[in-house]
Amino acid sequence: MTGVSRRGWLTGGALAAGGTLVGAASVAAARSEQPPVRVPEPVPASVTVGAAVEPFHGERQSGIATEPQAHAAFVAFTLRAGTDRAALGRMLRLLSDDAARLTQGRPALADTEPELGLLPARLTVTFGFGPGLFAAAGLDDRRPPSVVELPSFPIDRLQPRWSGGDLLVQICADDPITVAHAQRVLVKDSRPFATVRWVQQGFRRAAGAEPGRTQRNLFGQLDGTANPKPGQPLETAVWITDGPDWLRHGTTLVVRRIRMDLETWDLLGRTDRELSVGRRLDSGAPLTGTAEHDEPDFAALGPDGLTVIPDFSHLTRAHVSDDRLRILRRPYNYDGTPAADGTADSGLIFASYQADIATQFLPIQRRLAERDLLNEWTTPIGSAVFAVPPGCPEDGWVGQQLLD
Amino acid sequence: MTGVSRRGWLTGGALAAGGTLVGAASVAAARSEQPPVRVPEPVPASVTVGAAVEPFHGERQSGIATEPQAHAAFVAFTLRAGTDRAALGRMLRLLSDDAARLTQGRPALADTEPELGLLPARLTVTFGFGPGLFAAAGLDDRRPPSVVELPSFPIDRLQPRWSGGDLLVQICADDPITVAHAQRVLVKDSRPFATVRWVQQGFRRAAGAEPGRTQRNLFGQLDGTANPKPGQPLETAVWITDGPDWLRHGTTLVVRRIRMDLETWDLLGRTDRELSVGRRLDSGAPLTGTAEHDEPDFAALGPDGLTVIPDFSHLTRAHVSDDRLRILRRPYNYDGTPAADGTADSGLIFASYQADIATQFLPIQRRLAERDLLNEWTTPIGSAVFAVPPGCPEDGWVGQQLLD
Ligand code: HEM
Ligand code: HEM
Repeated sequence: MTGVSRRGWLTGGALAAGGTLVGAASVAAARSEQPPVRVPEPVPASVTVGAAVEPFHGERQSGIATEPQAHAAFVAFTLRAGTDRAALGRMLRLLSDDAARLTQGRPALADTEPELGLLPARLTVTFGFGPGLFAAAGLDDRRPPSVVELPSFPIDRLQPRWSGGDLLVQICADDPITVAHAQRVLVKDSRPFATVRWVQQGFRRAAGAEPGRTQRNLFGQLDGTANPKPGQPLETAVWITDGPDWLRHGTTLVVRRIRMDLETWDLLGRTDRELSVGRRLDSGAPLTGTAEHDEPDFAALGPDGLTVIPDFSHLTRAHVSDDRLRILRRPYNYDGTPAADGTADSGLIFASYQADIATQFLPIQRRLAERDLLNEWTTPIGSAVFAVPPGCPEDGWVGQQLLD
Repeated sequence: MTGVSRRGWLTGGALAAGGTLVGAASVAAARSEQPPVRVPEPVPASVTVGAAVEPFHGERQSGIATEPQAHAAFVAFTLRAGTDRAALGRMLRLLSDDAARLTQGRPALADTEPELGLLPARLTVTFGFGPGLFAAAGLDDRRPPSVVELPSFPIDRLQPRWSGGDLLVQICADDPITVAHAQRVLVKDSRPFATVRWVQQGFRRAAGAEPGRTQRNLFGQLDGTANPKPGQPLETAVWITDGPDWLRHGTTLVVRRIRMDLETWDLLGRTDRELSVGRRLDSGAPLTGTAEHDEPDFAALGPDGLTVIPDFSHLTRAHVSDDRLRILRRPYNYDGTPAADGTADSGLIFASYQADIATQFLPIQRRLAERDLLNEWTTPIGSAVFAVPPGCPEDGWVGQQLLD
């Protein structure tokens, strides 16, 4: 039985459970008048969380402008000594093929657990190239100048175990088994070429838990409000529109692991928390407004003559008014095992996409590192930067224009 | 603002986002003709994955017969030296109150991130008492005799960091942020009484990903097929119906962390994998049948004169035909960071509920430890046992009949 026919069969089987289809899904199915059995592909995304599909092939890689999925694994690799340009080509051809299949709900070619490859759950696999990849390929001259280890900031407490990486594979899906399986396949197929440097697993709200809402981080804050929206702002801020051919429709990615000190944060009153960010905890509204998406008024003064939104609030310091200079934050929460005394191991896998690190990310990070009330409760413990090549057509692979 | 009024307000706020309510949820809302704002509690479970609620109060604890949620954190505590019977009473009164609120989508009393307490997502919090709790309370004579460290088996490679525990809190929900927040609250409120011994975080398929299907483990097997079903088998196998008052409607829990060696498993052909378990990988059918829930025929012989389902298959060795002696498996997958060479850190948080460990769990575990083809690829690395007290009424707390 081929992967495709097996997939059709199993999907049909899942839906054929009939009476077991529950709640919203059955309502949706009934409304769209689809028969509950043997639905032909592609299965509409509304049927189940598991059947929803994101494209893999295309001008741009998925997993960037894609509405963030509930689960992510960021996997960073160190290339083995012998992995040169030709080997990198073989590696990325293989991994692109794995990704092309798995994202569409088909097992990978040499998939040893093919049944785990059948539920795409909006799986995306996004590749990023670290500075070391350019060096290994003998292509240092083609590395975008801003794709280089970030300058160190006084707030940093970077640990090697969460930093650097020659190749990044960002795996996102609404189902944690789908992420685990894709991670397994991609790590296995990378073995001849690379070792695993670090893996950071993170989560956001489950699919369908709070449809259409901005997610909250583990401080309880709405996180993502001021992200550039689809359309012009996102277009100009994230995607590289000029420059070398192999980067057009590409972007860059900064991944920072930022510990959030819940112990001291929890000692703080609500007012202080809201002042430190400049937004309300409940609604996410700026302190000068009432609704989440109200424009903050940084000049508004309170009765005490001070700005209502403190000058050193995260909001004021991070704010960017020029659309072209904004960044697209696509962070995930992490929550490891607490220490014996209960100290949480929580934080943010801060991931931001921008056309250029030097002119977009760095000025913000510099302002924050210099002065940001939130620094009291947050500590960067990992850092890595990647060039994100464009997507690929069906007969191509990611990175082909650079490496072939 | 009290937790309750804040909740009403925020829930209203969430739904008031109006235009942002999408897909199935808005369909369901429209169908049930509820106004999109300020929906009175309880919110119908069909509205979103996030709003679905499981009961906390009742004769029996939730999280056992409850349809397994997508995410779990098993948190085991070691009691501090001074935590005696009276202190345990205070602790469980506090934790029961936290659980009663959070499971119903209300922040805990001293909740420092109240906004994270508003989405129940079928949260359940289940308490288990390890042998050390009875000793600390001076109630060794009331400990069920089978709630004692398991005998060691030749297959075991137990690590202290995954073993034992005086008090277990099993936290399950369909949303990972809900689990993280409940864990945070419960760990924080335990601080005066206990330290964290271990935490095991696991996952199953996302809510809505494969409605009505048996989950798959990371070997790709359908895992849970032969579980006792609601009704008589579950009743008699899981719940304690006689014995001391404080245990009636209680049960016992065994938690084993079992490493699954994907490296060697992946070298095995499909036929060998299916023989080792006695079921097919795709359908989960016994090797003597065609559908998942077909009864296995352990006597059927193949053309070679051997039993079709190998005598040393996991199925044959684990099989129990007397309904009263079955166990309810409620396992979660775990998937840690792979080693540099790509070796996976994957396995099962095997959790089983049964009325009595000695007569139900142990005979199965003994047979498996003695001979089970699956042992070649699985290794128990953690083990813990707990008595699970009955549920509590609204004005009570879990463990009250024992500790008050
Ligand atoms: C754990 C660390 C961090 C936390 C908890 C955090 C939290 C927040 C919150 C709550 C907001 C307001 C709502 C929103 O627009 O999302 C915000 C805004 C923002 N943050 Fe952060 N943040 C963190 C780190 C960073 C870092 C490292 C950067 C970039 C270097 C950054 C850049 C921004 C930007 C650009 C905005 C939008 C500002 C605006 O234009 O309104 N944040 N952050
Ligand atoms: C990583 C370790 C394990 C794996 C991968 C595993 C896997 C499986 C699979 C695939 C099945 C068949 C489908 C089903 O009914 O769920 C099964 C059945 C079963 N397993 Fe396991 N299992 C493991 C450990 C255990 C342990 C430790 C026990 C108890 C000591 C156990 C007890 C059972 C029982 C009672 C059945 C049902 C047998 C029947 O009556 O048909 N398993 N297991």
